[in-house]
Amino acid sequence: MAKTQIIAKPGMPQIEITREFDAPRELLFRAHTDPKLLVQWLGPRRLTMTIDRFDARDGGTWRYTHRDTDGTEYGFHGVFHGTPSVDGIVQTFEFEGAPGHVSLETLTFEEHDGRTRVQVMSVYQSVEARDAMVESGMESGLAEGYERLDELVARLAPVS
Amino acid sequence: MAKTQIIAKPGMPQIEITREFDAPRELLFRAHTDPKLLVQWLGPRRLTMTIDRFDARDGGTWRYTHRDTDGTEYGFHGVFHGTPSVDGIVQTFEFEGAPGHVSLETLTFEEHDGRTRVQVMSVYQSVEARDAMVESGMESGLAEGYERLDELVARLAPVS
Repeated sequence: MAKTQIIAKPGMPQIEITREFDAPRELLFRAHTDPKLLVQWLGPRRLTMTIDRFDARDGGTWRYTHRDTDGTEYGFHGVFHGTPSVDGIVQTFEFEGAPGHVSLETLTFEEHDGRTRVQVMSVYQSVEARDAMVESGMESGLAEGYERLDELVARLAPVS
Repeated sequence: MAKTQIIAKPGMPQIEITREFDAPRELLFRAHTDPKLLVQWLGPRRLTMTIDRFDARDGGTWRYTHRDTDGTEYGFHGVFHGTPSVDGIVQTFEFEGAPGHVSLETLTFEEHDGRTRVQVMSVYQSVEARDAMVESGMESGLAEGYERLDELVARLAPVS
């Protein structure tokens, strides 16, 4: 199974996430921008994801919640800078549990021989905000979400 | 006259700009979000600013151009994350001369005794992009724009 690589250099307000998938980039792009697909993989399995809005165009806003098994809800929202395309997605990101802390995410989909490397580059307003995100346990949730994405693209991809 | 302070720490993808104005923060907020006022101060005097769109709400997009005396045009665009208020403005920023390089700007307006400290915190996707912005000569244009803003708020403020 592919490994999720997370780079968070000490003292820098950035996180760089890289993950390879066995599917063409058009499919990965769809899985990131079609709410019906996104809801099937984003986050760990125990959380139930509900998308309130997801308007994938320049200035379009998005919001979703993750509901834990004990009923606790976590809300997230942001806005797209430029219209998302297979060449990349630029969006803001705010966890409503830490209001006022906004990051800027740049997603790219690079394809080689039918496999796609997804990269998410996030910049934060401060190193402290970046550190808080790293310490929130994002790593395991991210890896589990990407495993679900492996499964989703396998179901969707034409058998070769 | 107040001094524009620019902090750009080596090796960090951030720029922090601070400037104090002799006016209440409501007025500074208006000067930053009312296109009729913005066009009167943003940038050096020799440039003619034209605002194509400026929709100050969550997901609202903005675009303007600066036309130089030789006719050269510089375009800029972005989108608001959250609805701008006197408590702060969060927006993306892209110079169309360097497409694909997006930064995230957080503006705050802090008032003490009728004077307001405006702070603009920008984070870039890389240190290289930040360095390119610093080396573009932003400093003199910024200082001149803020001098024009001094003049604008003096015209608008009630005489005390």
